[in-house]
Amino acid sequence: MPTTTVLDPDRLLPVEPRVRDLARELYQAVASEPIISPHGHVPAAQLLDGVRFADPTDVFLTHDHYVTRMLIAAGASFAELGLDPTRPADPRAAWQILASNWHRFAGTASGYWLAHEFASLFDVHEELDASNAVRVYDAIDARLADPAFTPRSLFRRFGIEVLATTDDPLDPLDAHARLAADPRFDGRVLPTFRPDAYLDPEADGFAERVERLLATTARPASFAGYLGALEERRAHFIRHGAVSADHGVVEPFTVDLDPAEAERLFGAAVRGALDPAEARRFRGHMLLQMARMSVDDGLVMTLHPGVRRNHHRPTFERYGADTGHDIPVRTELTDNLRPLLERFGLEPRFHLVLFAVDETVYSREIAPLAGFYPSVYVGAPWWFLDAPDAIQRWRSAVTETAGFYRSSGFIDDTRAFLSIPARHDTARRADAGFLARLVAEGRVSLPTAHRIARDLVDAIPREVFKL
Amino acid sequence: MPTTTVLDPDRLLPVEPRVRDLARELYQAVASEPIISPHGHVPAAQLLDGVRFADPTDVFLTHDHYVTRMLIAAGASFAELGLDPTRPADPRAAWQILASNWHRFAGTASGYWLAHEFASLFDVHEELDASNAVRVYDAIDARLADPAFTPRSLFRRFGIEVLATTDDPLDPLDAHARLAADPRFDGRVLPTFRPDAYLDPEADGFAERVERLLATTARPASFAGYLGALEERRAHFIRHGAVSADHGVVEPFTVDLDPAEAERLFGAAVRGALDPAEARRFRGHMLLQMARMSVDDGLVMTLHPGVRRNHHRPTFERYGADTGHDIPVRTELTDNLRPLLERFGLEPRFHLVLFAVDETVYSREIAPLAGFYPSVYVGAPWWFLDAPDAIQRWRSAVTETAGFYRSSGFIDDTRAFLSIPARHDTARRADAGFLARLVAEGRVSLPTAHRIARDLVDAIPREVFKL
Amino acid sequence: MPTTTVLDPDRLLPVEPRVRDLARELYQAVASEPIISPHGHVPAAQLLDGVRFADPTDVFLTHDHYVTRMLIAAGASFAELGLDPTRPADPRAAWQILASNWHRFAGTASGYWLAHEFASLFDVHEELDASNAVRVYDAIDARLADPAFTPRSLFRRFGIEVLATTDDPLDPLDAHARLAADPRFDGRVLPTFRPDAYLDPEADGFAERVERLLATTARPASFAGYLGALEERRAHFIRHGAVSADHGVVEPFTVDLDPAEAERLFGAAVRGALDPAEARRFRGHMLLQMARMSVDDGLVMTLHPGVRRNHHRPTFERYGADTGHDIPVRTELTDNLRPLLERFGLEPRFHLVLFAVDETVYSREIAPLAGFYPSVYVGAPWWFLDAPDAIQRWRSAVTETAGFYRSSGFIDDTRAFLSIPARHDTARRADAGFLARLVAEGRVSLPTAHRIARDLVDAIPREVFKL
Repeated sequence: MPTTTVLDPDRLLPVEPRVRDLARELYQAVASEPIISPHGHVPAAQLLDGVRFADPTDVFLTHDHYVTRMLIAAGASFAELGLDPTRPADPRAAWQILASNWHRFAGTASGYWLAHEFASLFDVHEELDASNAVRVYDAIDARLADPAFTPRSLFRRFGIEVLATTDDPLDPLDAHARLAADPRFDGRVLPTFRPDAYLDPEADGFAERVERLLATTARPASFAGYLGALEERRAHFIRHGAVSADHGVVEPFTVDLDPAEAERLFGAAVRGALDPAEARRFRGHMLLQMARMSVDDGLVMTLHPGVRRNHHRPTFERYGADTGHDIPVRTELTDNLRPLLERFGLEPRFHLVLFAVDETVYSREIAPLAGFYPSVYVGAPWWFLDAPDAIQRWRSAVTETAGFYRSSGFIDDTRAFLSIPARHDTARRADAGFLARLVAEGRVSLPTAHRIARDLVDAIPREVFKL
Repeated sequence: MPTTTVLDPDRLLPVEPRVRDLARELYQAVASEPIISPHGHVPAAQLLDGVRFADPTDVFLTHDHYVTRMLIAAGASFAELGLDPTRPADPRAAWQILASNWHRFAGTASGYWLAHEFASLFDVHEELDASNAVRVYDAIDARLADPAFTPRSLFRRFGIEVLATTDDPLDPLDAHARLAADPRFDGRVLPTFRPDAYLDPEADGFAERVERLLATTARPASFAGYLGALEERRAHFIRHGAVSADHGVVEPFTVDLDPAEAERLFGAAVRGALDPAEARRFRGHMLLQMARMSVDDGLVMTLHPGVRRNHHRPTFERYGADTGHDIPVRTELTDNLRPLLERFGLEPRFHLVLFAVDETVYSREIAPLAGFYPSVYVGAPWWFLDAPDAIQRWRSAVTETAGFYRSSGFIDDTRAFLSIPARHDTARRADAGFLARLVAEGRVSLPTAHRIARDLVDAIPREVFKL
Repeated sequence: MPTTTVLDPDRLLPVEPRVRDLARELYQAVASEPIISPHGHVPAAQLLDGVRFADPTDVFLTHDHYVTRMLIAAGASFAELGLDPTRPADPRAAWQILASNWHRFAGTASGYWLAHEFASLFDVHEELDASNAVRVYDAIDARLADPAFTPRSLFRRFGIEVLATTDDPLDPLDAHARLAADPRFDGRVLPTFRPDAYLDPEADGFAERVERLLATTARPASFAGYLGALEERRAHFIRHGAVSADHGVVEPFTVDLDPAEAERLFGAAVRGALDPAEARRFRGHMLLQMARMSVDDGLVMTLHPGVRRNHHRPTFERYGADTGHDIPVRTELTDNLRPLLERFGLEPRFHLVLFAVDETVYSREIAPLAGFYPSVYVGAPWWFLDAPDAIQRWRSAVTETAGFYRSSGFIDDTRAFLSIPARHDTARRADAGFLARLVAEGRVSLPTAHRIARDLVDAIPREVFKL
């Protein structure tokens, strides 16, 4: 018999009664504030008029690689889960796999969010298991047919004020333009410039991608032309509302090359003729150029280093990217970012948000950097670290050095649209709990804690992301 | 006057009353479950009929390098502690040193286990100090003479269902065979294949060890012969009940060599003619070969990287290995294990348990790997990290990404036979406390927490170690 | 309207009532014990008769780069804060900037200490803000005119028994001599030998500094002469009461060179002719020589590796060192210190205190090293890590392996004289809280916890620093 559960109204708050009371008070003061989501992966097209969700498996399973990876680890096959493009899968069979493995999600962030979504959106108040899988599937499926459950309806219901997407530099941003022009939609859906694949000479298809980039302009195939084309695309994004450019790199190495070396490396890069050390220098120079462009055009620069993408090459070759095996590696920022920060760290217009999936850099590097450079902000914990315990570890690691006002505000970073409220709610509860503890320990006054709790969901993300 | 203490029945449980109540309930449900110990260092011969413990110093001090190292750090000499094979020591004098330094063990894992053993097995309920050392020694010594205090009697009393030893590949496993054949002994005592010294060309005596290995077979002194001989020894272990092969390396580098290079490096290795880079490649290839053999013969592969053995060479040269100065170093798994996991990570039969003494890899590498690869399990914290706080840090670091069901179950990894119940009890209390907090925070339901607490001591170790 | 606050008498103690009661009892037993400060940066001259503090900005802001860095990060300029030697600043205007940005210090260690100092020394019980800045400035300024508020008066009031300064090897130590000879001053103010700039061939002005060093002696400009001159200066410090020599390095690499290589590298070093690898070997050999000298002359060796000094070169060039942009880098001790510890690790007279700003080495390297080598002590967390949460993380990371008696006792490491009581009080509360939790968890008895709490502020620093 499945376990009946209800969402505990005090969930995620500290357990000690006095701290819990303080935390509840702080949480409730911000619980219903609008959601500002300055970085994520929901496609803008999903919010166009008339778009609906397909079915529960499509909504909760297939496109959420945090869910599918746990099922692969449990022994499921990609095909069963609907991840093999050559073999259509039965959504109900995939759902049954999720339900049978539901206990494996206990204690995980994904399990928490799913339970939150099931309960708050679909009135499903029991833990999934093999016996209730069909019933729950049908209940959710019926609800998804309701017009109140389109992405657009939910966007409003969720109280989302700003939602940023993540987009290829050559994306024409038509969906964004249509949303902006739609008189029946008043949300802000902003593109984000994500140029990684155009900056890394070792990325598959780099030369051809640069060629297409240059083809968007009348510029010559020189390093200057390449930079100019990138600047033009950034301007295109800014015209469509973009406030930030996002950069994912394995190693955040930066270097300031002289023009001749940059030109030479660029020429070799498009010919595929760089050795690994040269490719590294080219990437490092381009990361510094991206900072230079951010100084010039004002786009906030977000940087998330330290992930080995597509760790299991056979899976990548068969099923593509974002299939659950991006694995973090050790990160170093102090020395790697020094050339960039020596040039731009004190530029008043420059905002650089440093994310990490290597927790060791929080107290050692990011908080010290953000405690000096006015341009540097401590990125919220994300990816594997946007979970209740990890958020507490992060706040504890950075706050004593950098305070609250050098942090970025919460970032949901998600493709799973329905999880956005659960994720922001988690962050609000976690921050309320952290602040409540500081109040109970006599370190922060309650009025100041209230001010901080509010600023964390409002003034701070607006300042950091120039909203 | 020594402090009288009693074992607090709620020891190690969280302090907040509501969480403590939940934790107590969860703990009590598993407190008396049989002990499954799939990795450790108790010699099988210790369990043969008629074997007795010598004296308190022999039981608690001389052979436990976690205890002797702290006394060395406190200024004792190896000779006084009985660690100089050329100079016999007075066990009572060594015991006096332990008692005089007892306050140094406050807050340590070793101190906790010893206190637990003194109280639960020997009715010693006072803290050691210089004044009661003799009395306590005598009390324990008298009890050790009782036939109920032989290792074999205690094995039964401790409720040990399975105990794995760690053995040299050329060990004939006679003691295991005698135990298995003994009608008066019904415990499972399993050997574990530990081939490190046969795989590292830089280990002292490598060539001679390989020669002895090859001499056990009719195989030629080629790389193929060497692999075949290792496979035969593994088969010998499997015939004696082995379920796993254990691998300790400084760096978990793996590489897949072509046969010609492997053959060439093997030839040079036995001639002592490898340079350090070649030795590294050979070791890396052999670690991958060990995974290949585990896929073939089903032995669970356990891997514990990142310890610089025998850090103080003069001590090693005089007193040998395992004398308390193995010191951890930074570990990297994501890139090092990639070649191995690309080949075998999705093999259904393959189980790879990743231990670490570098806590930074828990959230950054091990949990993400175990959350995708069905073969990879998160090894329990051990060595310096099998202590109450460290266990909480570990669960917090891995659970939000990988859940409970990708973890290995507790591993005591001990030579100190009498500490086995204290160690498993510590883990059960720690896990009950961790689960209780998740229940109190509304993240896991109480019925699910009960299921997990039970699976952690039963279904999970059985699955992971194929018991 | 500013928030009125009072210092919570239970501040920083654990929140759970039973643990708080235990913690309060443990804390109160040591709250008024004398302060032993074996490492810090208060200039000895500040304690000479008749020296007064200038004004609130001078006391709390200008010379505390933990405060100025946060204001720089908030957008203030160096000139406004009085850090531009070419442009005098208005102390009241600088104070206004601090007050307007006071909320940015919420949750930080610096904010906590300042609030503690304002309340306990100046009866300022409200949070700073733009509106009360002038009033608070005037209140503090008036109090500073009181003869009871000279550094010397406060030294006595603070209950400081020992205060160590940090000094250049060529410092004549006149201020120390005058304090020692002053019949109206009975505090112990000890110099500390800090030779970094004389040991690193890549430091600016190395050759000229060595020349000045050699000029203090009749020794030849050889490696032996250089070592002898350093030994003489150490003897000079010892004659003035020094108990330790302090070493800050980026990388704690050590190597034992043969005399010929040492001589050759020294010759090249003073000619500025070393390549980076040679400079590293020279530094590594000199760190080992410093250990050798400590064995010979008994000075405790303190080592704090892992900080990239003056990260933002343009700021360094304009405003000098210690301007808030020293940023930690990853640290490795196990392999780097091995040559040093193989030679001197078991020397009975040798004390080596290992500090870190990279938290990852606490459980992985420092605690294991201190749990074996009698010479090695676990340095208290400092710099970015001497804050309430960081102290708990540190105790949790090291205690289960090394216990309390291998730790150094608290180190305030501060230039901010008025913050000394707040910092030591923070450590006493943090340790009381940590011990109280162990008592409540049944891991340490209350009498033993009392003994440890007392030893941590008395016997332990006296032993470690040979006081």
